[in-house]
Amino acid sequence: MITLYTWTTPNGRKASIMLEELGWKYEVKPINIGKNEQFTDEFLAIAPNNKIPAIVDHDAEGGPLSIFESGAILTYLAEKSGQFLPASGPGRYKVLEWLHWQIGGLGPMLGQLGYFGVRAEEKTPAAIERFTEESDRLLTVMDTQLQRHPYLAGDEYSIADISCYAWTVAATTFLGKVLGDRLDSKEALHRWLETLGDRPAVQRGMKIPG
Amino acid sequence: MITLYTWTTPNGRKASIMLEELGWKYEVKPINIGKNEQFTDEFLAIAPNNKIPAIVDHDAEGGPLSIFESGAILTYLAEKSGQFLPASGPGRYKVLEWLHWQIGGLGPMLGQLGYFGVRAEEKTPAAIERFTEESDRLLTVMDTQLQRHPYLAGDEYSIADISCYAWTVAATTFLGKVLGDRLDSKEALHRWLETLGDRPAVQRGMKIPG
Repeated sequence: MITLYTWTTPNGRKASIMLEELGWKYEVKPINIGKNEQFTDEFLAIAPNNKIPAIVDHDAEGGPLSIFESGAILTYLAEKSGQFLPASGPGRYKVLEWLHWQIGGLGPMLGQLGYFGVRAEEKTPAAIERFTEESDRLLTVMDTQLQRHPYLAGDEYSIADISCYAWTVAATTFLGKVLGDRLDSKEALHRWLETLGDRPAVQRGMKIPG
Repeated sequence: MITLYTWTTPNGRKASIMLEELGWKYEVKPINIGKNEQFTDEFLAIAPNNKIPAIVDHDAEGGPLSIFESGAILTYLAEKSGQFLPASGPGRYKVLEWLHWQIGGLGPMLGQLGYFGVRAEEKTPAAIERFTEESDRLLTVMDTQLQRHPYLAGDEYSIADISCYAWTVAATTFLGKVLGDRLDSKEALHRWLETLGDRPAVQRGMKIPG
Protein backbone atom coordinates (compact mmCIF):
# COMPACT_ATOMS: atom_id res chain seq x y z
CA MET A 1 0.00 0.00 0.00
CA ILE A 2 1.15 3.51 -0.83
CA THR A 3 -0.04 6.67 0.92
CA LEU A 4 -0.11 9.75 -1.33
CA TYR A 5 -0.04 13.18 0.29
CA THR A 6 -1.31 15.57 -2.34
CA TRP A 7 -3.46 18.52 -3.33
CA THR A 8 -5.21 19.86 -6.46
CA THR A 9 -2.07 21.23 -8.13
CA PRO A 10 -0.06 20.20 -11.22
CA ASN A 11 2.74 18.76 -9.07
CA GLY A 12 0.28 16.67 -7.08
CA ARG A 13 -1.35 15.36 -10.25
CA LYS A 14 1.92 13.94 -11.57
CA ALA A 15 1.91 11.43 -8.71
CA SER A 16 -1.80 10.55 -8.92
CA ILE A 17 -1.65 10.07 -12.72
CA MET A 18 1.35 7.75 -12.31
CA LEU A 19 -0.34 5.69 -9.60
CA GLU A 20 -3.49 5.43 -11.73
CA GLU A 21 -1.39 4.33 -14.74
CA LEU A 22 0.17 1.60 -12.64
CA GLY A 23 -3.21 0.54 -11.26
CA TRP A 24 -1.71 0.19 -7.79
CA LYS A 25 -3.79 0.45 -4.65
CA TYR A 26 -3.11 3.69 -2.81
CA GLU A 27 -4.74 5.90 -0.23
CA VAL A 28 -4.97 9.66 -0.65
CA LYS A 29 -4.26 12.06 2.21
CA PRO A 30 -5.31 15.54 1.06
CA ILE A 31 -2.97 18.28 2.30
CA ASN A 32 -4.96 21.50 1.98
CA ILE A 33 -2.29 24.08 1.25
CA GLY A 34 -4.95 26.80 1.45
CA LYS A 35 -5.23 25.90 5.15
CA ASN A 36 -1.43 25.55 5.64
CA GLU A 37 -1.71 21.82 6.31
CA GLN A 38 1.74 21.39 4.73
CA PHE A 39 3.29 22.79 7.90
CA THR A 40 2.12 20.12 10.35
CA ASP A 41 4.83 18.08 12.09
CA GLU A 42 3.43 14.87 10.59
CA PHE A 43 3.82 16.18 7.04
CA LEU A 44 7.19 17.87 7.59
CA ALA A 45 8.64 14.56 8.82
CA ILE A 46 7.93 13.16 5.34
CA ALA A 47 8.41 16.32 3.28
CA PRO A 48 10.96 18.68 4.89
CA ASN A 49 10.47 21.18 2.04
CA ASN A 50 6.74 21.45 3.03
CA LYS A 51 5.49 20.83 -0.50
CA ILE A 52 3.16 18.23 -1.95
CA PRO A 53 3.29 15.62 -3.34
CA ALA A 54 4.95 13.10 -1.06
CA ILE A 55 4.43 9.37 -0.72
CA VAL A 56 5.04 6.65 1.82
CA ASP A 57 5.47 3.17 0.38
CA HIS A 58 4.59 0.88 3.28
CA ASP A 59 5.80 -2.16 1.34
CA ALA A 60 9.21 -0.88 0.28
CA GLU A 61 12.24 -3.12 0.52
CA GLY A 62 13.66 -2.70 4.05
CA GLY A 63 10.58 -1.05 5.58
CA PRO A 64 8.34 1.98 4.94
CA LEU A 65 9.97 4.54 2.66
CA SER A 66 8.91 8.19 2.36
CA ILE A 67 9.79 10.22 -0.72
CA PHE A 68 9.19 13.89 -1.48
CA GLU A 69 9.69 15.81 -4.77
CA SER A 70 7.47 14.82 -7.69
CA GLY A 71 10.42 13.94 -9.95
CA ALA A 72 11.88 11.56 -7.37
CA ILE A 73 8.44 9.99 -6.79
CA LEU A 74 7.93 9.40 -10.53
CA THR A 75 11.41 7.88 -10.83
CA TYR A 76 10.84 5.63 -7.80
CA LEU A 77 7.48 4.36 -9.06
CA ALA A 78 8.89 3.82 -12.56
CA GLU A 79 11.87 1.86 -11.24
CA LYS A 80 9.78 -0.21 -8.82
CA SER A 81 7.24 -1.09 -11.54
CA GLY A 82 9.60 -1.30 -14.51
CA GLN A 83 7.20 0.93 -16.46
CA PHE A 84 7.35 4.32 -18.21
CA LEU A 85 11.17 4.61 -17.89
CA PRO A 86 13.58 2.20 -19.62
CA ALA A 87 15.91 0.48 -17.16
CA SER A 88 19.01 1.28 -19.26
CA GLY A 89 20.23 2.45 -22.64
CA PRO A 90 19.80 5.73 -24.54
CA GLY A 91 15.99 5.73 -24.14
CA ARG A 92 16.36 5.96 -20.36
CA TYR A 93 18.28 9.23 -20.60
CA LYS A 94 15.93 10.75 -23.19
CA VAL A 95 13.18 10.29 -20.57
CA LEU A 96 15.32 11.69 -17.75
CA GLU A 97 16.40 14.76 -19.72
CA TRP A 98 12.78 15.77 -20.44
CA LEU A 99 11.75 14.90 -16.88
CA HIS A 100 14.45 17.22 -15.54
CA TRP A 101 13.50 19.85 -18.13
CA GLN A 102 10.01 19.90 -16.65
CA ILE A 103 11.20 19.87 -13.03
CA GLY A 104 13.74 22.66 -13.52
CA GLY A 105 12.09 24.71 -16.26
CA LEU A 106 8.47 24.30 -17.26
CA GLY A 107 7.18 23.78 -13.70
CA PRO A 108 8.99 26.62 -11.92
CA MET A 109 8.43 29.13 -14.73
CA LEU A 110 4.71 28.40 -15.15
CA GLY A 111 4.48 28.41 -11.35
CA GLN A 112 5.94 31.93 -11.18
CA LEU A 113 3.66 33.03 -14.01
CA GLY A 114 0.73 31.75 -11.97
CA TYR A 115 1.86 33.80 -9.00
CA PHE A 116 2.67 37.08 -10.72
CA GLY A 117 0.12 36.85 -13.53
CA VAL A 118 -2.89 35.44 -11.68
CA ARG A 119 -2.62 35.08 -7.90
CA ALA A 120 -0.71 38.20 -6.78
CA GLU A 121 -3.05 41.08 -5.97
CA GLU A 122 -0.47 43.71 -6.82
CA LYS A 123 0.54 43.39 -10.48
CA THR A 124 4.24 43.60 -11.33
CA PRO A 125 4.57 44.15 -15.10
CA ALA A 126 8.31 43.35 -15.32
CA ALA A 127 7.80 39.97 -13.64
CA ILE A 128 4.67 39.14 -15.64
CA GLU A 129 6.52 39.92 -18.86
CA ARG A 130 9.57 37.86 -17.89
CA PHE A 131 7.60 34.76 -16.94
CA THR A 132 5.21 35.07 -19.88
CA GLU A 133 8.16 35.16 -22.30
CA GLU A 134 9.99 32.32 -20.60
CA SER A 135 6.84 30.16 -20.40
CA ASP A 136 6.15 30.75 -24.08
CA ARG A 137 9.75 29.87 -24.94
CA LEU A 138 9.53 26.61 -22.98
CA LEU A 139 6.18 25.65 -24.50
CA THR A 140 7.70 26.32 -27.94
CA VAL A 141 10.62 23.99 -27.12
CA MET A 142 8.06 21.37 -26.13
CA ASP A 143 5.99 21.92 -29.27
CA THR A 144 9.11 21.59 -31.45
CA GLN A 145 9.99 18.30 -29.77
CA LEU A 146 6.42 17.05 -30.24
CA GLN A 147 6.51 17.95 -33.94
CA ARG A 148 9.30 15.41 -34.28
CA HIS A 149 8.08 12.68 -31.93
CA PRO A 150 4.69 11.50 -30.64
CA TYR A 151 5.86 11.76 -27.04
CA LEU A 152 8.43 13.94 -25.30
CA ALA A 153 11.13 11.30 -25.05
CA GLY A 154 10.41 9.73 -28.46
CA ASP A 155 8.05 6.95 -29.48
CA GLU A 156 6.95 5.80 -26.03
CA TYR A 157 4.74 7.38 -23.39
CA SER A 158 6.86 7.93 -20.27
CA ILE A 159 7.17 9.73 -16.94
CA ALA A 160 8.41 12.75 -18.93
CA ASP A 161 4.90 13.08 -20.43
CA ILE A 162 3.22 12.41 -17.08
CA SER A 163 5.41 15.11 -15.52
CA CYS A 164 4.50 17.73 -18.13
CA TYR A 165 0.79 17.00 -18.59
CA ALA A 166 -0.89 18.80 -15.69
CA TRP A 167 1.39 21.83 -16.09
CA THR A 168 0.54 22.07 -19.79
CA VAL A 169 -3.17 21.79 -18.97
CA ALA A 170 -2.65 24.67 -16.53
CA ALA A 171 -1.03 26.69 -19.34
CA THR A 172 -4.20 26.32 -21.43
CA THR A 173 -6.67 26.96 -18.57
CA PHE A 174 -5.61 28.72 -15.35
CA LEU A 175 -2.78 30.55 -17.14
CA GLY A 176 -4.64 31.01 -20.42
CA LYS A 177 -5.68 34.55 -19.65
CA VAL A 178 -2.03 35.57 -19.27
CA LEU A 179 -0.60 33.53 -22.14
CA GLY A 180 -3.43 34.61 -24.47
CA ASP A 181 -3.19 33.32 -28.03
CA ARG A 182 0.43 32.22 -27.70
CA LEU A 183 -0.60 28.58 -27.48
CA ASP A 184 -2.89 28.63 -30.53
CA SER A 185 -0.15 27.93 -33.08
CA LYS A 186 1.40 25.09 -31.09
CA GLU A 187 -0.41 22.31 -32.91
CA ALA A 188 1.82 19.43 -31.86
CA LEU A 189 1.35 20.43 -28.22
CA HIS A 190 -2.43 20.35 -28.63
CA ARG A 191 -2.29 16.94 -30.35
CA TRP A 192 -0.21 15.59 -27.45
CA LEU A 193 -2.62 17.09 -24.89
CA GLU A 194 -5.50 15.30 -26.61
CA THR A 195 -3.65 11.98 -26.77
CA LEU A 196 -2.84 12.09 -23.07
CA GLY A 197 -6.26 13.45 -22.13
CA ASP A 198 -7.85 10.38 -23.76
CA ARG A 199 -6.07 8.03 -21.37
CA PRO A 200 -8.48 6.86 -18.61
CA ALA A 201 -5.68 6.83 -16.02
CA VAL A 202 -4.83 10.46 -16.82
CA GLN A 203 -8.49 11.39 -16.47
CA ARG A 204 -8.73 9.65 -13.10
CA GLY A 205 -5.42 11.05 -11.85
CA MET A 206 -6.49 14.61 -12.69
CA LYS A 207 -9.44 14.27 -10.26
CA ILE A 208 -7.28 13.39 -7.24
CA PRO A 209 -7.90 14.49 -4.52
CA GLY A 210 -11.66 14.48 -5.08
CA MET B 1 35.75 10.33 -24.28
CA ILE B 2 33.07 12.76 -23.17
CA THR B 3 32.57 16.24 -24.60
CA LEU B 4 31.21 18.76 -22.10
CA TYR B 5 29.47 21.87 -23.41
CA THR B 6 29.50 24.32 -20.53
CA TRP B 7 29.99 27.84 -19.25
CA THR B 8 30.95 29.55 -15.98
CA THR B 9 27.57 29.10 -14.26
CA PRO B 10 26.37 26.97 -11.31
CA ASN B 11 24.55 24.56 -13.64
CA GLY B 12 27.67 24.10 -15.75
CA ARG B 13 29.81 23.45 -12.67
CA LYS B 14 27.64 20.51 -11.59
CA ALA B 15 28.80 18.59 -14.63
CA SER B 16 32.47 19.58 -14.42
CA ILE B 17 32.66 18.74 -10.69
CA MET B 18 31.12 15.32 -11.39
CA LEU B 19 33.54 14.59 -14.23
CA GLU B 20 36.46 15.66 -12.06
CA GLU B 21 35.22 13.43 -9.20
CA LEU B 22 35.13 10.49 -11.59
CA GLY B 23 38.55 11.30 -12.96
CA TRP B 24 37.33 10.60 -16.48
CA LYS B 25 38.96 12.09 -19.54
CA TYR B 26 36.77 14.77 -21.09
CA GLU B 27 37.09 17.71 -23.42
CA VAL B 28 35.50 21.07 -22.68
CA LYS B 29 33.66 23.09 -25.32
CA PRO B 30 32.93 26.52 -23.85
CA ILE B 31 29.54 27.90 -24.90
CA ASN B 32 29.75 31.63 -24.22
CA ILE B 33 26.19 32.55 -23.33
CA GLY B 34 27.20 36.21 -23.22
CA LYS B 35 27.80 35.88 -26.97
CA ASN B 36 24.62 33.80 -27.59
CA GLU B 37 26.65 30.73 -28.59
CA GLN B 38 23.84 28.57 -27.14
CA PHE B 39 21.75 29.35 -30.21
CA THR B 40 24.00 27.79 -32.86
CA ASP B 41 22.58 24.87 -34.83
CA GLU B 42 25.36 22.59 -33.60
CA PHE B 43 24.49 23.24 -29.96
CA LEU B 44 20.71 23.15 -30.43
CA ALA B 45 20.99 19.67 -31.97
CA ILE B 46 22.36 18.49 -28.63
CA ALA B 47 20.47 20.82 -26.31
CA PRO B 48 17.06 21.80 -27.74
CA ASN B 49 16.37 23.97 -24.68
CA ASN B 50 19.46 26.07 -25.55
CA LYS B 51 20.95 25.82 -22.06
CA ILE B 52 24.28 24.54 -20.80
CA PRO B 53 25.45 22.06 -19.64
CA ALA B 54 25.15 19.29 -22.18
CA ILE B 55 27.38 16.30 -22.84
CA VAL B 56 28.11 13.87 -25.62
CA ASP B 57 29.43 10.48 -24.51
CA HIS B 58 31.24 9.17 -27.58
CA ASP B 59 31.68 5.75 -25.94
CA ALA B 60 28.10 5.16 -24.85
CA GLU B 61 26.51 1.76 -25.39
CA GLY B 62 24.99 1.76 -28.90
CA GLY B 63 26.84 4.82 -30.20
CA PRO B 64 27.38 8.47 -29.23
CA LEU B 65 24.77 9.73 -26.77
CA SER B 66 23.96 13.39 -26.12
CA ILE B 67 22.29 14.48 -22.88
CA PHE B 68 21.05 17.91 -21.79
CA GLU B 69 19.77 19.04 -18.35
CA SER B 70 22.26 18.98 -15.49
CA GLY B 71 20.16 16.60 -13.38
CA ALA B 72 19.96 14.05 -16.20
CA ILE B 73 23.71 14.38 -16.82
CA LEU B 74 24.54 13.77 -13.14
CA THR B 75 22.22 10.74 -13.07
CA TYR B 76 23.73 9.33 -16.27
CA LEU B 77 27.30 9.72 -15.07
CA ALA B 78 26.41 8.25 -11.65
CA GLU B 79 24.71 5.24 -13.21
CA LYS B 80 27.47 4.65 -15.75
CA SER B 81 30.19 4.86 -13.09
CA GLY B 82 28.29 3.27 -10.20
CA GLN B 83 29.37 6.19 -8.00
CA PHE B 84 27.65 8.92 -5.95
CA LEU B 85 24.16 7.36 -6.33
CA PRO B 86 23.24 3.96 -4.86
CA ALA B 87 21.95 1.57 -7.53
CA SER B 88 18.91 0.58 -5.45
CA GLY B 89 17.35 0.74 -1.99
CA PRO B 90 16.20 3.62 0.19
CA GLY B 91 19.51 5.49 -0.11
CA ARG B 92 19.00 5.84 -3.86
CA TYR B 93 15.76 7.76 -3.38
CA LYS B 94 17.15 9.98 -0.61
CA VAL B 95 19.72 11.13 -3.19
CA LEU B 96 17.11 11.59 -5.92
CA GLU B 97 14.73 13.59 -3.72
CA TRP B 98 17.44 16.11 -2.83
CA LEU B 99 18.69 16.17 -6.43
CA HIS B 100 15.17 17.03 -7.62
CA TRP B 101 14.79 19.54 -4.78
CA GLN B 102 17.82 21.39 -6.19
CA ILE B 103 16.69 21.12 -9.81
CA GLY B 104 13.14 22.30 -9.13
CA GLY B 105 13.65 24.64 -6.19
CA LEU B 106 17.06 25.91 -5.14
CA GLY B 107 18.35 26.41 -8.70
CA PRO B 108 15.36 28.18 -10.26
CA MET B 109 14.71 30.39 -7.23
CA LEU B 110 18.35 31.49 -6.79
CA GLY B 111 18.45 31.95 -10.57
CA GLN B 112 15.50 34.34 -10.48
CA LEU B 113 17.02 36.14 -7.48
CA GLY B 114 20.16 36.60 -9.56
CA TYR B 115 18.13 38.11 -12.37
CA PHE B 116 15.87 40.44 -10.39
CA GLY B 117 18.28 41.20 -7.55
CA VAL B 118 21.57 41.57 -9.44
CA ARG B 119 21.42 41.47 -13.25
CA ALA B 120 18.22 43.39 -14.13
CA GLU B 121 18.90 47.09 -14.63
CA GLU B 122 15.38 48.08 -13.60
CA LYS B 123 14.72 46.99 -10.03
CA THR B 124 11.38 45.33 -9.24
CA PRO B 125 10.93 45.32 -5.44
CA ALA B 126 8.02 42.80 -5.39
CA ALA B 127 10.05 40.24 -7.34
CA ILE B 128 13.25 40.85 -5.36
CA GLU B 129 11.31 40.35 -2.11
CA ARG B 130 9.60 37.18 -3.32
CA PHE B 131 12.80 35.50 -4.51
CA THR B 132 14.81 36.65 -1.50
CA GLU B 133 12.24 35.12 0.87
CA GLU B 134 11.96 31.89 -1.13
CA SER B 135 15.75 31.54 -1.45
CA ASP B 136 16.16 32.05 2.27
CA ARG B 137 13.43 29.49 2.98
CA LEU B 138 15.15 26.92 0.74
CA LEU B 139 18.58 27.56 2.24
CA THR B 140 17.01 27.10 5.69
CA VAL B 141 15.54 23.74 4.60
CA MET B 142 19.02 22.76 3.44
CA ASP B 143 20.65 23.94 6.67
CA THR B 144 18.12 21.98 8.73
CA GLN B 145 18.89 18.82 6.76
CA LEU B 146 22.63 19.40 7.19
CA GLN B 147 22.20 19.82 10.96
CA ARG B 148 20.98 16.22 11.00
CA HIS B 149 23.31 14.64 8.43
CA PRO B 150 26.82 15.35 7.14
CA TYR B 151 25.59 15.34 3.53
CA LEU B 152 22.24 16.17 1.95
CA ALA B 153 21.14 12.58 1.40
CA GLY B 154 22.61 11.25 4.65
CA ASP B 155 26.04 9.87 5.50
CA GLU B 156 27.47 9.69 1.97
CA TYR B 157 28.58 12.39 -0.46
CA SER B 158 26.39 12.14 -3.56
CA ILE B 159 25.18 13.84 -6.72
CA ALA B 160 22.70 15.71 -4.50
CA ASP B 161 25.64 17.54 -2.90
CA ILE B 162 27.36 18.07 -6.26
CA SER B 163 24.12 19.52 -7.62
CA CYS B 164 23.72 22.01 -4.77
CA TYR B 165 27.33 23.11 -4.28
CA ALA B 166 27.87 25.75 -6.97
CA TRP B 167 24.43 27.28 -6.37
CA THR B 168 25.15 27.55 -2.64
CA VAL B 169 28.51 29.15 -3.39
CA ALA B 170 26.62 31.64 -5.59
CA ALA B 171 24.30 32.39 -2.65
CA THR B 172 27.31 33.37 -0.54
CA THR B 173 29.10 35.37 -3.27
CA PHE B 174 27.26 36.71 -6.34
CA LEU B 175 23.93 36.80 -4.45
CA GLY B 176 25.42 37.77 -1.10
CA LYS B 177 24.62 41.45 -1.53
CA VAL B 178 20.92 40.61 -1.91
CA LEU B 179 20.71 37.88 0.74
CA GLY B 180 22.71 39.98 3.22
CA ASP B 181 23.23 38.43 6.65
CA ARG B 182 20.57 35.76 6.16
CA LEU B 183 23.21 33.09 5.65
CA ASP B 184 25.25 33.96 8.73
CA SER B 185 23.25 31.81 11.15
CA LYS B 186 23.20 28.75 8.88
CA GLU B 187 26.16 27.03 10.49
CA ALA B 188 25.56 23.55 9.13
CA LEU B 189 25.42 24.97 5.61
CA HIS B 190 28.78 26.67 6.08
CA ARG B 191 30.33 23.48 7.50
CA TRP B 192 29.09 21.55 4.43
CA LEU B 193 30.42 24.27 2.08
CA GLU B 194 33.85 23.92 3.71
CA THR B 195 33.82 20.13 3.52
CA LEU B 196 32.97 20.16 -0.18
CA GLY B 197 35.29 23.07 -0.91
CA ASP B 198 38.20 21.00 0.48
CA ARG B 199 37.71 18.31 -2.17
CA PRO B 200 40.32 18.69 -4.95
CA ALA B 201 37.81 17.55 -7.60
CA VAL B 202 35.35 20.25 -6.50
CA GLN B 203 38.11 22.85 -6.68
CA ARG B 204 39.09 21.73 -10.19
CA GLY B 205 35.48 21.50 -11.39
CA MET B 206 34.73 25.04 -10.22
CA LYS B 207 37.44 26.35 -12.58
CA ILE B 208 35.88 24.85 -15.74
CA PRO B 209 35.84 26.36 -18.33
CA GLY B 210 39.15 28.11 -17.65
